[in-house]
Amino acid sequence: MKLWEDAGSALQKLRSKRPLIHHITNFVTMTDCANATLAVGASPTMTNAVEEVEEMAAAADALLLNMGTLQHWTVDAMLLAGKAAEKAGIPIILDPVGAGGTAYRTESVLRVIQNIPVTIIRGNLSEIICLAYKKSGVNPGVDNHEKTTVDISLITRIAQLLGTTVVITGAADAVSDGTHSVVLGNGCPMLTYVTGTGCMTTSLIASFAAVTDPFTAAAAGTSVMAIAGEQALADGGNAGPGSFHQLLFNSIYQFKADSFHLYGKVLIENGTK
Amino acid sequence: MKLWEDAGSALQKLRSKRPLIHHITNFVTMTDCANATLAVGASPTMTNAVEEVEEMAAAADALLLNMGTLQHWTVDAMLLAGKAAEKAGIPIILDPVGAGGTAYRTESVLRVIQNIPVTIIRGNLSEIICLAYKKSGVNPGVDNHEKTTVDISLITRIAQLLGTTVVITGAADAVSDGTHSVVLGNGCPMLTYVTGTGCMTTSLIASFAAVTDPFTAAAAGTSVMAIAGEQALADGGNAGPGSFHQLLFNSIYQFKADSFHLYGKVLIENGTK
Amino acid sequence: MKLWEDAGSALQKLRSKRPLIHHITNFVTMTDCANATLAVGASPTMTNAVEEVEEMAAAADALLLNMGTLQHWTVDAMLLAGKAAEKAGIPIILDPVGAGGTAYRTESVLRVIQNIPVTIIRGNLSEIICLAYKKSGVNPGVDNHEKTTVDISLITRIAQLLGTTVVITGAADAVSDGTHSVVLGNGCPMLTYVTGTGCMTTSLIASFAAVTDPFTAAAAGTSVMAIAGEQALADGGNAGPGSFHQLLFNSIYQFKADSFHLYGKVLIENGTK
Repeated sequence: MKLWEDAGSALQKLRSKRPLIHHITNFVTMTDCANATLAVGASPTMTNAVEEVEEMAAAADALLLNMGTLQHWTVDAMLLAGKAAEKAGIPIILDPVGAGGTAYRTESVLRVIQNIPVTIIRGNLSEIICLAYKKSGVNPGVDNHEKTTVDISLITRIAQLLGTTVVITGAADAVSDGTHSVVLGNGCPMLTYVTGTGCMTTSLIASFAAVTDPFTAAAAGTSVMAIAGEQALADGGNAGPGSFHQLLFNSIYQFKADSFHLYGKVLIENGTK
Repeated sequence: MKLWEDAGSALQKLRSKRPLIHHITNFVTMTDCANATLAVGASPTMTNAVEEVEEMAAAADALLLNMGTLQHWTVDAMLLAGKAAEKAGIPIILDPVGAGGTAYRTESVLRVIQNIPVTIIRGNLSEIICLAYKKSGVNPGVDNHEKTTVDISLITRIAQLLGTTVVITGAADAVSDGTHSVVLGNGCPMLTYVTGTGCMTTSLIASFAAVTDPFTAAAAGTSVMAIAGEQALADGGNAGPGSFHQLLFNSIYQFKADSFHLYGKVLIENGTK
Repeated sequence: MKLWEDAGSALQKLRSKRPLIHHITNFVTMTDCANATLAVGASPTMTNAVEEVEEMAAAADALLLNMGTLQHWTVDAMLLAGKAAEKAGIPIILDPVGAGGTAYRTESVLRVIQNIPVTIIRGNLSEIICLAYKKSGVNPGVDNHEKTTVDISLITRIAQLLGTTVVITGAADAVSDGTHSVVLGNGCPMLTYVTGTGCMTTSLIASFAAVTDPFTAAAAGTSVMAIAGEQALADGGNAGPGSFHQLLFNSIYQFKADSFHLYGKVLIENGTK
């Protein structure tokens, strides 16, 4: 399958280049995000002082903005770093944690997407729908908050409304750049018993985005986490979230270029690159 | 035993309801607190921006305030969130980390308990005695700082002075709401070789407080951590604190309603609910 | 060997005294640093509010300053705490994370070393060379940025330029107080796949500095991490960085006074104490 071939090549390139991923991220999951970035083969930096984020972003191969524990000074840092990343021509990956959860949070996320040319956005269904609706003024077609799965037409429409590559993770994961869309079928429920598996997925996506196109990066990063989760569960992670958590880093580290082909599940694919 | 029956029922309710526990907490142990909250079956949020903590607290099922790495802006956030929690009628759980350690810390903790109707306070002996003395002006009966164990009359008196449910954790753990008091006998020394086991205990107590009365919540949360510690040690955690740390989350996750009855040790009990 | 005898005695003293190590440190690795400090037998505190750091430092047995995720308020806290530590006569250990990476970072690190009598500095080669050059105005003899190993004459010259005990960690580790210098040969590449192993090494050095002279502390702390890494790898850490990470804490915890003698490798030694 073309997608898994591209993902496998990207992983080899990632490990050979060891790209620098600058994170402005939340305080809860930052250690795990740094370790996920290292495990896949990239190199994380994580400073968030307004005095230096422009220099950090300009020296990086990708910039990741995660809104988890936002403060006015981290949002300021994101805007400065985002402008520097735009100037440097590196991809910008956004994790709009909790968008829609509070007025301040939604407003801050909008400030970021209105001022920074974001390349890829990853979130759960409610966060991404909130963003698409707030940015475009168009309801992407979800009538109630109880919808918990995403179909291929919904992810495509949302990517078109947002004008970026979009990843929605959940019971199933979906990726679209507005033209090319997939619904992916890997993962396991134990991933929801470890904080930060969503944030770590965004770190993996950013690591791939430093070496390949946004669609491939989004699908590859999402699939590494989902497949690594399945393997961690099989390797002893079913004993509980403590074991699972640590085995996850082993599985990301041991992930091979052909693991996409061997274990990856594409449930539906529409369009091509 | 009535206490363990109540605790078991609360655990079932907790896992069925999956309550939202909003934390304003310290930066050292927040990841572990989030993971302990997930492992027991509740759902953690952890933002601390003054712009949004009121909305977060109002949407939560319990509010946890942990003074560990306090800053003037986190204390401001605690006061705002505490007022919102009071208005919403949800329980407020306080972890007065390091009370008595510095003037600023003691003063900040007092500001919190004088302005916010705290439901449960959990700390070690010196923190709790400092708080009881500072709040009431009455020495709770400890003549020197070398006292390291707590007896049933001391915990009862402290709860009465503070006018809340109180948990003191240490070599033995004790819980009192001023009328009903217990000294508990589970736990193991390896818990002191992992940072944040006290903070995590407070997260577990807050998770239970969202679904049951303060006394049951305090005893249940404290006992889950202490019993999970014993099980983690038996399951391989005696190899060292790294293994123990991860196994602890497995044990919390695997904790069952009848585990209280099977493994819980009440050393002394005074009064009844 | 005299060095390992001194290190072994220091470890026994450390575990008997359980010194308090106050950290003003970065948000990415602070949990792991606290756990490494506990595992070796010392006791960590980690507050960074300007209102209380002087009191915290004055009550501690050593002060650790780590520049990782610096903010103007953490730098202010470092300066205040450093002055209090100087007055209290306790050792001050500096980890100049990312020195040379941005103008603000380099300037902030210089502000610290120009105002605070630092006892030991630990960093990687580029950080330490940046500091030595900026402080002394003398190029310590490295002509290009591609140099990745440190020899005995370089570490000695750098320690003389900085006027402190210096540790450079990397493929080989080197320690010098300007007179007595060693190049050490323990460690393994898996240490680079876990974030914070450098920061944790600094925590171990600070733990030893509370009970022994700077040179012994620097060599002992560096060697505990490097040897513990080898043992974690042998004990199952070769499965990947998740397993390795947790086993590392076990190995630090199980480290014995004679482990220095049994496993420590001194590649070159110049001068004596």
